[in-house]
Amino acid sequence: MLYETQNPHGGDLYSRKILLDFSANINPYGTPQAVKDAVAGSVDALCHYPDPYCRALVSAIAEFEGVEEKQVFCGNGAAELIFSCCMALRPRKALVLSPCFSEYETALKVFGTEVDHYLLRREDGFALTEAFLPYLQSYRGQLLMLCNPNNPTGQVTDRGLLESILAVCREKRIFLFVDECFLDLTEDGEAFSMKPFLKENPNLLLLKAFTKSYGMAGLRLGYCLSGNRQLLHTMGCQVQPWNVSIPAQNGGIAALRQRDFLEMAKKTISEQREVLEDGLRKLGMAVIPSKTNYILFQGPRDLRERLLEAGIQIRSCANYIGLSEGWFRIAVKLPEENKKLLEAMEKALKE
Amino acid sequence: MLYETQNPHGGDLYSRKILLDFSANINPYGTPQAVKDAVAGSVDALCHYPDPYCRALVSAIAEFEGVEEKQVFCGNGAAELIFSCCMALRPRKALVLSPCFSEYETALKVFGTEVDHYLLRREDGFALTEAFLPYLQSYRGQLLMLCNPNNPTGQVTDRGLLESILAVCREKRIFLFVDECFLDLTEDGEAFSMKPFLKENPNLLLLKAFTKSYGMAGLRLGYCLSGNRQLLHTMGCQVQPWNVSIPAQNGGIAALRQRDFLEMAKKTISEQREVLEDGLRKLGMAVIPSKTNYILFQGPRDLRERLLEAGIQIRSCANYIGLSEGWFRIAVKLPEENKKLLEAMEKALKE
Repeated sequence: MLYETQNPHGGDLYSRKILLDFSANINPYGTPQAVKDAVAGSVDALCHYPDPYCRALVSAIAEFEGVEEKQVFCGNGAAELIFSCCMALRPRKALVLSPCFSEYETALKVFGTEVDHYLLRREDGFALTEAFLPYLQSYRGQLLMLCNPNNPTGQVTDRGLLESILAVCREKRIFLFVDECFLDLTEDGEAFSMKPFLKENPNLLLLKAFTKSYGMAGLRLGYCLSGNRQLLHTMGCQVQPWNVSIPAQNGGIAALRQRDFLEMAKKTISEQREVLEDGLRKLGMAVIPSKTNYILFQGPRDLRERLLEAGIQIRSCANYIGLSEGWFRIAVKLPEENKKLLEAMEKALKE
Repeated sequence: MLYETQNPHGGDLYSRKILLDFSANINPYGTPQAVKDAVAGSVDALCHYPDPYCRALVSAIAEFEGVEEKQVFCGNGAAELIFSCCMALRPRKALVLSPCFSEYETALKVFGTEVDHYLLRREDGFALTEAFLPYLQSYRGQLLMLCNPNNPTGQVTDRGLLESILAVCREKRIFLFVDECFLDLTEDGEAFSMKPFLKENPNLLLLKAFTKSYGMAGLRLGYCLSGNRQLLHTMGCQVQPWNVSIPAQNGGIAALRQRDFLEMAKKTISEQREVLEDGLRKLGMAVIPSKTNYILFQGPRDLRERLLEAGIQIRSCANYIGLSEGWFRIAVKLPEENKKLLEAMEKALKE
């Protein structure tokens, strides 16, 4: 919970009336009906404590991901696991890319870590390139936190480069944290996952969430995968035993049975991203071509405020290190919704 | 989530078939229907992030408790708030009573705190007495964590003694944490609450939960009350923004409208506690007379195992500091359930 601080994130529907929210990067189809049914079907169990080992959920995740059960650790949303991982590792110095999801740095600072930023360049379309490797070679920290695809840039780092990064990290005893929360909504996402390297690399942890993939942001469920049992054990000792609610455990199990749901979403995202990117360009915006379910672009500085007047919320990216006023991120939503956004933008630009 | 460690708590229904669970101290009436309806009614909102400020919930809690909104901070169950408070305070040395709920010590140790134990005495029926005051006067630590009524002893510390403790704490700059999670299920509970002292005492924090009062253990919702805005601000900066799910926020608001529910529960608990205590004594158990919704007693060392054969789970208290094998805790449940427990005990003792 936030307390007397400003919310640095998108997705706030509670401070004013929002008809269409493009500020949170959620699956355009929302929550699968099976998940809703599982949550509603949990109400008679609410008087009991949740399973503190999340046994059935861990088993379902392990099967879905093709990993071992002991490589899975669940949390109250991916956000809790970011804090939990940073608390367990407590590095003296850590490296994040910029622009990137700000909770890594927020969590690191809670535990006194000195945070360094590697700036992604506009000229590279904010992609991470081979130029990062010599920088990493000379880096004197204990943790590298990556997001793949990166939020808010929508860029994917290919596995070849990631393998090189992992090799440097292993050699230099740098722990590698890779947030793969958006990979299940990315075409050929599986090809970019670092899962195959978990077993041989105890310095690797991957973060996944149901939030985006299955439209479960309000239910709070994330997990991480690591071959480092000592790390997961430490994380388990540093959070409360019942961090994952019964509705979330049951909802998660139901979600993992919906493989078609992800395929359907990926197809729509792929098609609609093109529609949105074309539309944005035609409106004169500078678009960073995305590989996933959200798009970063540059436009008029007051675009967000103008759209809010029409009840449409987009994410201002002005508070990302490496970006500034006039940068925005939108989620790729359903055809009708995307059409409404483009129309509202066109109208807003004329006014 | 627990990971490759033993669960030190009751309420685990997931490792074997349990027909009747007396090991978790939940309201005998379980979850109010209005809460179940609110959770089921949340399913269409799950694709959105929860309100990170818990605005509607904080407002409902403030009204229910008769405190200011800025004195309320919500968490993913009281258990998260114990960790969060210990993380924010990070005392060098802290004092807990024994026997007491073990999560205080678990959380303190995560943050490197040296934990001291003040042993409650069997001769006093495990009640905290005036004898504690001179001990506290000479104590050289920064935090005192109390539970009122105390878990697992069922003893209430009266407000006169608590006021004296608070005065000593203020004088000695000791922070006072009082877990009042069971107070809403305790007769005349309001008379024991330290709420009236919040405003004048920034060294005071009270913990409350929906878990026990409204049978919401599986939903995860707790809150704390403090007049110390700096502390709540620090806690807010050290957890993720979305720690309270949408079903929990909505369920909590619905619960607070059920005042009759608590009254009904308190009446039943009062009557049934007497039935259980009488029954236990007749079976030769040594009962510590309780003031709340659970009972601590001493019996045959293998009583728990014998009852498990009949599908009934009670809480072994052998892992509490200050107790040993043969100490057990049971919740006060509904008449029919309590009858079954006593019958099963009688049978188990004869075998």
